[in-house]
Parts: sequence; structure tokens; C-alpha cells
Amino acid sequence: MHQQQLTETLFTAKKQKGLRFADLETLLGRDEVWIAALFYGQASAAADEAEKLGRALELDADAIGALQEFPLKGLGPMVPTDPLIYRFYEILQVYGMPLKAVIHEKFGDGIMSAIDFSMNVEKETDPKGDRVHISMSGKFLPYKKW
Amino acid sequence: MHQQQLTETLFTAKKQKGLRFADLETLLGRDEVWIAALFYGQASAAADEAEKLGRALELDADAIGALQEFPLKGLGPMVPTDPLIYRFYEILQVYGMPLKAVIHEKFGDGIMSAIDFSMNVEKETDPKGDRVHISMSGKFLPYKKW
Amino acid sequence: MHQQQLTETLFTAKKQKGLRFADLETLLGRDEVWIAALFYGQASAAADEAEKLGRALELDADAIGALQEFPLKGLGPMVPTDPLIYRFYEILQVYGMPLKAVIHEKFGDGIMSAIDFSMNVEKETDPKGDRVHISMSGKFLPYKKW
Amino acid sequence: MHQQQLTETLFTAKKQKGLRFADLETLLGRDEVWIAALFYGQASAAADEAEKLGRALELDADAIGALQEFPLKGLGPMVPTDPLIYRFYEILQVYGMPLKAVIHEKFGDGIMSAIDFSMNVEKETDPKGDRVHISMSGKFLPYKKW
Amino acid sequence: MHQQQLTETLFTAKKQKGLRFADLETLLGRDEVWIAALFYGQASAAADEAEKLGRALELDADAIGALQEFPLKGLGPMVPTDPLIYRFYEILQVYGMPLKAVIHEKFGDGIMSAIDFSMNVEKETDPKGDRVHISMSGKFLPYKKW
Amino acid sequence: MHQQQLTETLFTAKKQKGLRFADLETLLGRDEVWIAALFYGQASAAADEAEKLGRALELDADAIGALQEFPLKGLGPMVPTDPLIYRFYEILQVYGMPLKAVIHEKFGDGIMSAIDFSMNVEKETDPKGDRVHISMSGKFLPYKKW
Amino acid sequence: MHQQQLTETLFTAKKQKGLRFADLETLLGRDEVWIAALFYGQASAAADEAEKLGRALELDADAIGALQEFPLKGLGPMVPTDPLIYRFYEILQVYGMPLKAVIHEKFGDGIMSAIDFSMNVEKETDPKGDRVHISMSGKFLPYKKW
Amino acid sequence: MHQQQLTETLFTAKKQKGLRFADLETLLGRDEVWIAALFYGQASAAADEAEKLGRALELDADAIGALQEFPLKGLGPMVPTDPLIYRFYEILQVYGMPLKAVIHEKFGDGIMSAIDFSMNVEKETDPKGDRVHISMSGKFLPYKKW
Amino acid sequence: MHQQQLTETLFTAKKQKGLRFADLETLLGRDEVWIAALFYGQASAAADEAEKLGRALELDADAIGALQEFPLKGLGPMVPTDPLIYRFYEILQVYGMPLKAVIHEKFGDGIMSAIDFSMNVEKETDPKGDRVHISMSGKFLPYKKW
Amino acid sequence: MHQQQLTETLFTAKKQKGLRFADLETLLGRDEVWIAALFYGQASAAADEAEKLGRALELDADAIGALQEFPLKGLGPMVPTDPLIYRFYEILQVYGMPLKAVIHEKFGDGIMSAIDFSMNVEKETDPKGDRVHISMSGKFLPYKKW
Repeated sequence: MHQQQLTETLFTAKKQKGLRFADLETLLGRDEVWIAALFYGQASAAADEAEKLGRALELDADAIGALQEFPLKGLGPMVPTDPLIYRFYEILQVYGMPLKAVIHEKFGDGIMSAIDFSMNVEKETDPKGDRVHISMSGKFLPYKKW
Repeated sequence: MHQQQLTETLFTAKKQKGLRFADLETLLGRDEVWIAALFYGQASAAADEAEKLGRALELDADAIGALQEFPLKGLGPMVPTDPLIYRFYEILQVYGMPLKAVIHEKFGDGIMSAIDFSMNVEKETDPKGDRVHISMSGKFLPYKKW
Repeated sequence: MHQQQLTETLFTAKKQKGLRFADLETLLGRDEVWIAALFYGQASAAADEAEKLGRALELDADAIGALQEFPLKGLGPMVPTDPLIYRFYEILQVYGMPLKAVIHEKFGDGIMSAIDFSMNVEKETDPKGDRVHISMSGKFLPYKKW
Repeated sequence: MHQQQLTETLFTAKKQKGLRFADLETLLGRDEVWIAALFYGQASAAADEAEKLGRALELDADAIGALQEFPLKGLGPMVPTDPLIYRFYEILQVYGMPLKAVIHEKFGDGIMSAIDFSMNVEKETDPKGDRVHISMSGKFLPYKKW
Repeated sequence: MHQQQLTETLFTAKKQKGLRFADLETLLGRDEVWIAALFYGQASAAADEAEKLGRALELDADAIGALQEFPLKGLGPMVPTDPLIYRFYEILQVYGMPLKAVIHEKFGDGIMSAIDFSMNVEKETDPKGDRVHISMSGKFLPYKKW
Repeated sequence: MHQQQLTETLFTAKKQKGLRFADLETLLGRDEVWIAALFYGQASAAADEAEKLGRALELDADAIGALQEFPLKGLGPMVPTDPLIYRFYEILQVYGMPLKAVIHEKFGDGIMSAIDFSMNVEKETDPKGDRVHISMSGKFLPYKKW
Repeated sequence: MHQQQLTETLFTAKKQKGLRFADLETLLGRDEVWIAALFYGQASAAADEAEKLGRALELDADAIGALQEFPLKGLGPMVPTDPLIYRFYEILQVYGMPLKAVIHEKFGDGIMSAIDFSMNVEKETDPKGDRVHISMSGKFLPYKKW
Repeated sequence: MHQQQLTETLFTAKKQKGLRFADLETLLGRDEVWIAALFYGQASAAADEAEKLGRALELDADAIGALQEFPLKGLGPMVPTDPLIYRFYEILQVYGMPLKAVIHEKFGDGIMSAIDFSMNVEKETDPKGDRVHISMSGKFLPYKKW
Repeated sequence: MHQQQLTETLFTAKKQKGLRFADLETLLGRDEVWIAALFYGQASAAADEAEKLGRALELDADAIGALQEFPLKGLGPMVPTDPLIYRFYEILQVYGMPLKAVIHEKFGDGIMSAIDFSMNVEKETDPKGDRVHISMSGKFLPYKKW
Repeated sequence: MHQQQLTETLFTAKKQKGLRFADLETLLGRDEVWIAALFYGQASAAADEAEKLGRALELDADAIGALQEFPLKGLGPMVPTDPLIYRFYEILQVYGMPLKAVIHEKFGDGIMSAIDFSMNVEKETDPKGDRVHISMSGKFLPYKKW
């Protein structure tokens, strides 16, 4: 089962069941962003997670197996054009060097891991317009010398 | 005064004064990430902010004037190769579509603004390795229909 | 239903019904440019808008559902080669920096929103050759400082 | 005199004189966007226009001559990363095909000229946030058959 | 009917009828280059032109309708690699700036239209090797000032 | 002497002498487009041609020598953004495949040479707007089989 | 019949017949490299050549016809990644400018034709490791002046 | 001493001495293509070769030292636009896959080395037009299995 | 049988048989990395190797034949976005020039072969986190002079 | 002091002192590859390391300070063309997917760190041609779930 088919199968099933990612978060005990990453083939499930999700969405064995594969990740080498996704690229364009300066000042030479990493999304209600609040937590990895 | 010269002038002065971005945060009443963005010509200061920074770093009138220009922003149309910056691009590659799915589910059709936007960086001490914590807050802008 | 199929379904139905975008403008109470954006999967309809369009074009339930999805937007990261579309890219190439200078002078540091945004197209009859008149209106978003 | 030098000379002189593009509009009898285009080497002045601007900004003969050259135009073959300019690229990405459909429906096969073309920028004051209003007028050029 | 299918249908029919573009030139009263452009979906026919071509090539109603669509034009944003087409790109690479200099000197600031434009191809017989003669005629469009 | 310097030297001298390419055409017995190509380092002069041009423009020995070098040709691997030059790229985009079809039909498998090639530019006066007339003549080179 | 299908048909038939390009060289009286180019749609056969090859490989009329088409040539605008093909690109990267210098010194301003061109491949047996010997012969085309 | 300066120094000295690459071939006992590669910083000389060339061109110690450095090689990741160099790229585009097929058939899985490699250029006089003859010899490297 | 199909066939069979690459290493007497390369069409098997693998995975004759083809190798001309693969690209970005300096210092001018080359992967167990150990061995190829 | 200047200063000093990276390895107690990375601004030294290197190479205070900066890393977003560096890119092209498959099989979903990472280079003497032996050791980072 190819990744794109799996993605469509998962979104179709979720829609038919009337489930939101927030519902799946409760069900699986995993954050909704991570579950959405699983839907897009950007993460891989353990056997029991795949089973649980399979029961919730009435998936067949093939799909349950495919959820446990180690996928080829990433959107591809491109500047995104979808406006929602582009804004994150723009944040990197505008605030990438400032972030680098601040992180190095606080932590020294190294990076924030994108692997030992988690993020979540909250909705902040605000009369002047709701706000999206995103928090990221990544392990700092200092550059090894040898 | 060209942007790159301004950036060098600012970093040199900050080093000679032995100041950290955190110190400038206290001084200016602005977040250190925003101040670092100012250093890299990704933000523009109001007259009083430029004066205050000018006094702290002993800048000349030219530099104080240049801090108030409206700069051409962005790193340029590229995939970054610096590992620290790349990790943010990778987060976009891997978690961009999942973020889009979750934000649309919570807010409807629209985007998180990168203009009415702020972010900050915290250091979380952890015996298994310190963690970088980044939080972003952007106004949700629903797509206008007309 | 994939976006490209939906686009073809909509254009085929519109042609068979002998409807112009201007007719749909009257029918839906939405501007013809916005409706054309909906046809190309660059906008999403509310349930009642999708129903109304569905009745006008005799669409099935699948298509009516697809009109309400939140699409992946944008033509992709490219320089367009269709001459009509390219001219808008050329306007950006030639008048982009001048526009930036004038907008900053009038409004300060910030951008014109492409989300809280509308545009329309008028035909100006002229004996020396008709003219295309395009007007755009976007909310000015000042850069937030924090 | 190279274009970039001319651009800097013009902006510096304008700043020292305390003039806005709107002031130059009155002075030259040309729209401020066109004058900004002249500043960025995207348009060429007639001899009398160059003289008039030269007197207003106290330019030397070299600069007055350079204003009358036929410049190499365009920002270069790239996706812009400055947020203000990018939004116009995004409008093209999102609304380019819809515009094409509507223009063809109204005018037939052809394009809106980017040469026999003018545009202007107005500020609309609005309590919910000011709006940028841009209007473009380009001659419709029907595709010649032969 | 998709453009590529239409192109194949037209070339197949032309081959089966044993017709050359030169024959179709006589038949339609249009230049062979323009007709070849129609075959590749780079031009659109009027109803009577589509009918005439449809009779000559025994096309069905779908194909006759498709000839009247307003196509998405251009090969795409690329450096061509077919040697015949590349040579025209090379002419642009080598003689583009010289052409710009000569046209500006003769006409002033503006461009040669690629819309109000025609071209044709002649074979010049020559004992030292036949020559391809191409002539182009495009309206000069002076840059509008406003 | 670097090519760009040579180009500037030549254009400055030509301007100071008040000469047009058409004047140089008479003087050198070469077409003005070829001479403009020489100015941009896209062609190389024979010793006597370089001397003749050197006398006309009062060039020094270095420049006269540089005119005889075999330059690195081409604008570089890019989509041009100058509107005048872009229109020729667009002609290639829109009419490249049709040209290929017509040339192959008239001549068989092969190309039009861009080396054994000449082109010229004429101004056609026309009350509805002057026209640029370009004619190209290139040797047909049939593909060798071996 | 599409080019890729033709390529597959030809390679499959050649394998089933147990023929090598060297055998086809004898059969057709053409060099094996040229025949391989025909297999990949980079050359076109005369009617009798197509017939001869058709008999040798038991091709049907469609394939025999397709061999006589004038194909769209080239791999596309890319840096090749197959190691065998890349080495030729690397030779161009490393020895391209030196070749240009030597050819200009020997022949003057012009190029080696890639159309009036032939190449062949020989295997040189060598106890220290066999060697590939490639020889190319292309007509020198001097730049025409006009 | 930077590579580009070294290249200019070498070409200037060679011109002043009135030497051709063929003369340097005799002097150094190395092929003229290899020597041209040395001029462009694509090869490195042994100490005695650098000394010999230094004496012939009256180079200073810096330049003689620079000839022995191990340079960063290659023109950069691009499609060349100089017509002479492009033709070699086109040969790769058109005959790359055929070469691969013929070499694999003759030698098995592997490549022709671009390191254990030599090439030379001969001028073949021909009344119908001189021909460039290039021969390349590279060691065949079979793919190691492990 | 196309390469991608072969890859899928091989991975499906391996999974159904419950075999790991380490098991195939024992079976074939070849390193698991080389075998994985064979799975992805980046290497070609000898007849007996293909037979042995065919028996282990119960492949049909077509697949066994396809394993012996000489494939078109490489992922394509791109910056990889899969995080695991990207890290190797990043190592090249960060340590590529240092590696070049050290290898040249130890070996002189030349390269490490990627053809006469082998690599393997070991798992180092470590209480602070397991480590991936990769060792590569490639023949040094000194640049030939001629 | 800019990075490129620092790199030149370091290489010049190392040459004048007649030191090899292997000598600096002994002196600093760091691997020669890491030291070469420091030379190219791809790593940053601690204060005592910078002092020690400063004494060995007789660097001034500016250079010693610059060695401790946190540099912008990476060669830039490109396919390398230097043959030595390209071979590592080719290894990634050819063996990247196989490496991914083997590492996932041995370790599960995750990556080899390029930060908690070391590598070294050994020369293996071999009568059939010396071999370059490279070993890499990187911490395995399992994908965090959250």
C-alpha cells in the first residue's frame, strides 16, 4: 500500500467516523499533531498503536501494516506555496538567523533536535481575533568534538 | 549604511560591551528574539528604540538612522544548509502538512499570521540533556470571501 | 475526489449549462474572481454556498463535499510561462520594489494581507483598445513588536 | 553611474530634502509608483522629467543622465522572500488561474499588457484596520492570428 | 479532452490524411506556424476555423470544441534541451542584450509585443547548404508613463 | 581588461561621440546587431575591425586587443526578467514546438545553426503603432548519421 | 506510439533475439552508438533503415513508423546522477574551459558541431585494467559575421 | 594567490611571450589540453613542472607555488551557456544514454574513469570544412561488490 | 519489469519470508548494504547471485532477469529531504571541504573512488545511546597527467 | 574577521610553519578532520584550543577570537562539482536509500546524528593501489513520539 493511498484511506475513514484529531488524541494517548504526522506518512506507529487506530477507523490489515513502515519523509526540496505552510517558511526566512544567534548565546555551538522533538498547537480565544499558539520542545545537541 | 555593515557594527559593539541579548531585552523592553531580528535587519526600530539601543552600544547617528529603515527581509530563496537553521526547515518538511491539517480543523480555512506574530526561546534544564523550548503566537487570519 | 477532477467537473458543468462566472456571481452573491478561485481549488465554500452551486451546476454529493475541503493552495514554486499569468509576475518583477517603497511610506513597516484580501476585474471599453482594470483591497498588517 | 548607485543617490537625496513620493508626484506630474519605479531603475525619464527631478533633489549631471537610460529591468528569476513583495507573488500563485479564467471569459484570448499599464496605491482608513487599495489598468492585447 | 490528447489526435489525423502544414495553410488561410501553434495548444481557433480544420482532419465534436479553448500556454520554466529548440534559446543568450540595445536605440523604451506578433519560416535553397529564414513582426509597445 | 569593463568603455565612448549603432554599421561594414554583440562581448573582431572601431571610438590598445579575444558567451543559465528580452523567451515558450514541427517538415531532421547565422532589426512605421521586424537566417544543419 | 514504449519494445526485442549493438552495426551499416541513439529516440531512421531494423527485430508497422519520427531530444535540463553519465558531465566541468581555450587557439572563434558529428567507442584491453576509448569528430563551425 | 588571478597571470604571460599551448606542450612534455587545465586551476603541477612553466612564462615564486596547489575543481552546478561548451553538454544530453548502453554492453557494470583519464584535440583539415577530432581514453572501473 | 516494481517485489517477498538483510548477507555471501543497493536498483547481480536470491525469495524468471540489468543509478539531482538521508548530505556540507584537505594532504591530488568502493554499517551498543558506525573503503585514484 | 579571511590566514600560517594536519592533531589532541573543519569555519574552538592553535600558528588576537565564533555552516544548497567532494554526494545518491533500509532494520525509526558525530580518515597501503578508509560514528537518535 503506497503512502498516498494510506493517507487518503485514513482521512476518508476519519471523516466517515466523524472523528477529529482531538478525538484520536484521547483514544491513542498521543498528541494530535503526531497523529496527523502519522496520517501523512511522516511518522511510524508501534504495533499496538496501529492496532488501536485500526479499530477506531476500521482499517484492514494492509493499512494497519503500512502504519508501521518507516516512511520516506519530507515534502521534497522546495519552497512551499500553500499560504499556511509558507508562513512557517517565512518565519524561518525572517527569524532564522536571529533564532540561531539567540540559541547559540543560550546554549553554545549545537542545534535543537528535530528528532527528539515534539510540538503542539493550541487555540487562544481573543476578542481581537483568535491566536494560534505553537510550542516546540527539542533536545539541545551540542556539537561533538573529537 | 548597508544592512550587512549595520549587522557587523551591532554585533561588534555588543561584544565589546560584553552584553547578551538577554541584557538588551531588559534594556529595551523587547524580547531578545525581536532584538536579534533587528540586528539582522529583519525588523525596524521606532526612533526611541533606536536611540536607546544607540546609547547602549555607543552607535553613531548613521547606525541609529539605519535601525529605523524598512529593510528588505528574508534569507533569500533557498534551502538553508546551516544545521541549526536547517532543522527548522526540516520541521516544516516533516510536520508542515500535519500542522496544516490540525490548524484547519481547529480554526477553519485561513493561516497563522507571520506578521502579527511573536516567538520566544527558553532553555529547559534537563539532566538527560537540556531542551530548547520555542513558543510562537500568531493571529489566525480567516480567508476573506468576497 | 481529487482537486483536478473537481476543477474539470465544475468547468464541464458550467459549459454545459451555458453559464458565465458573471452569472454565478449573481447566483451566489460572491465575486466572479472568488468563484473562479473556488473552481481551481484555491478557496473553500461554506455548506450553503456549496449546495447553491451544486444545484446550479447539478453536481453530485461528492463534488458538493469536495467544495468544502480546505485545499492545498498555490500553483507551485515556479516562474509561470503562460503569457497572461506571466504578465502579473512581470509586474511584480518590475514594480515590486517600487510598491514596497510606496506602501512603507504610506503605512510604515508591515504588509498588505493576501488573506484578508479581495480583488475584482472590470472591462473598460476604450476605442483605442479595451482595458483590463483590476482592483485589489488588502488589510494592512503592521509588524508586531514583542 | 551604475543603477544601484543611482538608486542610493536618489533615496539619500530624497531623505535629506525631507520629500515623500507624494511630494514628487505633485512636482513631476507623475504617479508616485511610477516615480518609485524610476528610483529603482525600472523606468526611464524623458529629458525634462530628469531635469525637474534633478533640480528637486540637487542631482549632478551624471545622475540626471542616468535617469534617462533604458535600464535592464526586473528583480531577477526568483521567488521573492521579502514578506511584502511575497504576498503579491502569493496572490499570483493563488488567484493567477482564476484571473486567467475571468479575463478570458470577459475579453477572449489575449493578455493584460504590463507595458501599456499603470497602477496606483491608496490608503483606505478603516477602524478595523487600514486597507491597502491597489488599482491596475492595462490595455487588453488580443492574440494576433496570421 | 486534454491538450496532449488533442495534440496527438491532430498529428495522427494529419499524418493519415497525408497533409502538410503548408496544405493546411492553404485550406485555412492562416500561416503554417500559427496552425502548428494551434496543434500544440498554444493558440485558440475561432468557431469557423475549428470547423474548417475539423472537416479537413475528420475530427469529432469534442476535438472541434477543444480547439476553441483558451489554453495554458508555454513549455514550462526550463532551459530546453532539444537541439533545434535550444538554438533559439542560445540566440537569446548570445544576442539578447545586443537586440535590446538596438531596439531601444531605434524605438526608445518599450518592447516588441509577443502577442500582436506573427512569424513565418521560409526555406532558402543554397548550394552551400539550405538556410532557414525566419521573420518576426511584433508591434512596438512603448512603456506607458503615468 | 575584463569583459564588463570593455562593455562599459565601449558604450561610454559611443555616447560621447554621439554615435548610433547605425553609424557604426556604415563605418565598419557590419550589421548593427553584430556590432552590438561585439559591445557585449558576444562576438570577436578581426584585427582590422578592432582597429577601425578603435579609431572611431578613440580606444586604447588594451581595449582594441580585448575586442579580438574569444569571449565566454551567453547571459547565463536563467529565465530572463527584463521585459524586452523575456518576450523572446516567451516566443520560444509558445512557438518553440510549432517551429520545430514546421522546420522538420520543410527540412527533415536537423537544426537551424546559431553559429552560421545572422539577424537584423528593422523599424516598420505604422499609423496603428510602429512594428519591430526581425529577420533571422541560419544554415540548416541536417543530423549526420554514421 | 510513445518514445518510451518504443525504447522498451526495441530493447526487449534485441534481448529476445540475443543481438548486441555490434551485431546491429553489421546489419544496418551504421555505428552502434548511433543505433543506440535510435533506440533511445535521439535519432531518426530513414525508411529503409527502419525496415531493415524492423525485420531484424520483428517489429510491427507502428514501431517501424515511429523510428522515422523526428523526436524531441535530450535527457532534460539536469545534472545527471547516474555515475557513468555523470563522469562525462564532470569531464565537461573540469576540462570544458581548457577545451574551449585549445579549440579557439587551433581554429579561431566558433564551435565543434554536435549535429555534423559522430562518435564511437572502442575497448582497449590492458593488463592494468581495460580502457574505454571514445573518439568524436565534429565539423568546426566558424562564427559568421554579418 | 587566488585561482582566478593565477589564471589571468598565466594567460597574460603566455600572450606576452607569444606562446601557444602547442609550444608549451613541447616544453613541458605534457599534452596541451592538460596544460590548459593547469591554466584554469583544474589540474595541479609537480614541483619540476611548475618550475619549468615558471621559467618559460617568467612567473614569480607565488605563482609557481600556486601551480602546485590542489584546486577546487569544476565550473559549478550549471547548464553552460557558452555555445562551444554547451555543445559538449548537448552531446551528453543526446548521446549520454546511448553511450551508457554501449559501454555496459562492451564492459559490464561500471564506468569510464574521469580521473585515470586523458583526452586530446586534433584539427582535421577538410575541404568541406575542417573538423575537430577529440579522443578520450579512460580506465574502465568495474563496480566492486562486497 | 520496471525498477520500482522490482524494488516493491523484493521488499514484499523479503517481508513475507520474514528475512532481514543480515539473513540475506549470510545467504549470498555479500554485505547487507550491497544487497539493499541491489533491492533499490543501484547495483546489478551476477547470474548465480540472482538465482540464489531468486530461490530465497521465490522470485519469478522476470525478476531474476531484472536483477542482472545495468540500472540507471542515483536518486536524482536533488537535496534530499528525508531526515536520515539528509544527515549524510549535511555531513558532506559541513565536512566536505575538511575531508578534501585531509585526503589531499595524505594522498596528493586525486579522489576516493565511489566505484571500487565498499561500505558497511555496524550497531555499537552504548548505555548513553546506541551509535551507528559506518566504515567506507574506496581506492584512491590519483589524477592522471598526460 | 570574515570566515574566508580566517581560512586563508590559517592555511597560509600552516604552510609557512610546514605543519600538516597530522601534526596539529598531536598538538591539539583533536582529530585532523575536526581541525580541518575548524580551518574551514565548520566548527568552533574552546578558548584554550584557540589559544593553543594560535601559539602554534602565531595567530593574532583577532584570529584567535574568530576561531571561537559559532559559524554559519555548510557549503550552500548545491550539488558539488569538485570531483573529490562529488564522490561523497554520489555515494549518497547511490547508497542513500540502501543505508536507510539497513539502519532502520538495525535500529528502528530514527537517524544517525550529524552533531553527536565523529569521523576519521586512514590511508591503507595496498600494492594494487592505496585505499582511503573513512569511518564515521554517530549517535542513533530514535524519533520521539508525543
